Amino acid sequence: MTASNSVLQSTYPWTKAPLIASAPMLNIALPPLAISVSEAGGLGFLAGGFDVSNLERNLEETTRLVRESKNTEIRNFHAETGILPMGVGFINWGADLEIAVAAIEKYKPCAVWFFAPRSQPDDLRAWAERVRAATDGRTKIWVQVGAVIEAVDVAEALRPDVLVVQGSDAGGHGLARSASVITLVPEVRDALHVNHATKDALPVILAAGGIVDGRGMAASLSLGSSGVVMGTRFLASSEATVARGYQAEVLRASDGGRNTVRSTVYDRVRGIGGWPERYDGRGVVNESYVDSVERGMDDEENRRLYQEEVKKGDDGWGPTGRMTTYAGTGVGLIKEALPVATILERVRCEATGLIRNLAGI
Amino acid sequence: MTASNSVLQSTYPWTKAPLIASAPMLNIALPPLAISVSEAGGLGFLAGGFDVSNLERNLEETTRLVRESKNTEIRNFHAETGILPMGVGFINWGADLEIAVAAIEKYKPCAVWFFAPRSQPDDLRAWAERVRAATDGRTKIWVQVGAVIEAVDVAEALRPDVLVVQGSDAGGHGLARSASVITLVPEVRDALHVNHATKDALPVILAAGGIVDGRGMAASLSLGSSGVVMGTRFLASSEATVARGYQAEVLRASDGGRNTVRSTVYDRVRGIGGWPERYDGRGVVNESYVDSVERGMDDEENRRLYQEEVKKGDDGWGPTGRMTTYAGTGVGLIKEALPVATILERVRCEATGLIRNLAGI
Repeated sequence: MTASNSVLQSTYPWTKAPLIASAPMLNIALPPLAISVSEAGGLGFLAGGFDVSNLERNLEETTRLVRESKNTEIRNFHAETGILPMGVGFINWGADLEIAVAAIEKYKPCAVWFFAPRSQPDDLRAWAERVRAATDGRTKIWVQVGAVIEAVDVAEALRPDVLVVQGSDAGGHGLARSASVITLVPEVRDALHVNHATKDALPVILAAGGIVDGRGMAASLSLGSSGVVMGTRFLASSEATVARGYQAEVLRASDGGRNTVRSTVYDRVRGIGGWPERYDGRGVVNESYVDSVERGMDDEENRRLYQEEVKKGDDGWGPTGRMTTYAGTGVGLIKEALPVATILERVRCEATGLIRNLAGI
Repeated sequence: MTASNSVLQSTYPWTKAPLIASAPMLNIALPPLAISVSEAGGLGFLAGGFDVSNLERNLEETTRLVRESKNTEIRNFHAETGILPMGVGFINWGADLEIAVAAIEKYKPCAVWFFAPRSQPDDLRAWAERVRAATDGRTKIWVQVGAVIEAVDVAEALRPDVLVVQGSDAGGHGLARSASVITLVPEVRDALHVNHATKDALPVILAAGGIVDGRGMAASLSLGSSGVVMGTRFLASSEATVARGYQAEVLRASDGGRNTVRSTVYDRVRGIGGWPERYDGRGVVNESYVDSVERGMDDEENRRLYQEEVKKGDDGWGPTGRMTTYAGTGVGLIKEALPVATILERVRCEATGLIRNLAGI
């Protein structure tokens, strides 16, 4: 299970194949989560988000954690190369390019992850060019896409190192109209092969959306990805910066296809208005959703009730609450919060065992 | 790749493991498709649909085709057991139990496939009981589900032989709110294991929804299924009873997450009003959808335009047409119409090769 992953492992030598990356979940993927994923042989991403005002502080903190890490591999990688063995994810419709580039130049994360520009891929051209110039190409370009046409356009325009191919099961934001990875990953792969003369120029494909265990990992590899990105799984990790109520709801929710929904209501009640129209977000069904969609409540009243709910703290989460629980359809497969190292070890081990078992060896 | 499939192969001895079944697609899965799938070592289903008035005629025709088949295995199976080596699928909210049971008793299909009763699982109790009695348990009970709770309830109430676990990528009808197989199949599997004392009592799980090639098959097996059901792939087969315009649209359409939608509009324009509210259907975006959803056209006008379009015949299909192209998100992976035998051989061969390759052997 290593041949197709040589590019990733030569770029990120502390990682194990197949690669597991953690999604740059807004407000949650902070230094403790990002470093723990990289320490466990994965690639951890910091959330840069759409408001990059905390970016420098988070990168500074991450750098300190790397220097103090007991993991000699990532500590030495940083000491020897000056490259931070973590990535940073941006929500490009809102993120400030100048602030981002200055921070990238200073801290040199090993990857940036672009997502949701107003215009895909045009608005990302300057980002890709400036980031490459800032660290002389050592910060690799990852771009998240959710449709075949996006993948082809982005590959052609930006020559990214990695495409994160996100299917409809993903939690949080993604394309409102999308296939799951079961068809999206193979079709993206085929389309890239048709559109590229040589295989060398192809970006690495990572699958995202609904992958929470070794079964999802093995499936993703079967579909043609070189690794996976997980988000929801890490919400229930010891190292995520997540409210206790949020994590409890992730552990409680089950039957994710039925009990999560794609909607814009969770942005509307929280007054987040910047997302381009093609996106919505998947979260566990709660009162905000039911009031909006089933009871026809207007946004103003729904938002007022949300603001009241915030005062309840952890008790505001849950099916009868109003705090947003962004999570993917795999939420029902997550039964306990675990240390990140355990999650990565189990996913890899289960995937390898499954594939060997299917092969009859 | 055979161990977990022994139950299916002992029940259906002409089939190869892992099992490939063809979905009972309304008006399309007629005797030529059903027999060709079984002749190729799969399990072909006839569409019984919600109006079973053609059922007896189709079973009679299928029986004749089996008796005349050049495939000695399925001919002998039928001659020796009296069991028809094909299944019949019903849309249970509309199908007449008495007519169905009489036909099943007479022709003895090897399986029935239940889908979309008004009340799940209650409305299926009589169906399961009567079918079992009609052929002394030799007609096996398959039930299609689209959520974990449905799977658990059906398994408990009906003790089906097979659960067809349908994910959100599927073409045609399914639960409007659903996960893809990437999370649904593992969560169903886990839930059944928790709810059953012994593994022997567990139904076999087949994955459906977005599976069109060996990659989808290998992924489904990784997720915990014992085989797959394909629908959309067989729309582009030589043996499907499908309009030329419909098949051409399946071959044309790509980027299925973007260019297909789940909607009830395709039922509404065709005047099909019986589906329980929890279902809609996935089809390629066309003028009926755009008029209804983006331009706010009322159903009456939309239906009138549909009826006009019918007169165009094959030219009525396509993105600017109004004839319905039910298809899954995997539609973009289908580039040519092929004989059923070639489809099954390629899917099996690709899946096996992929798994061996991932295992490094």
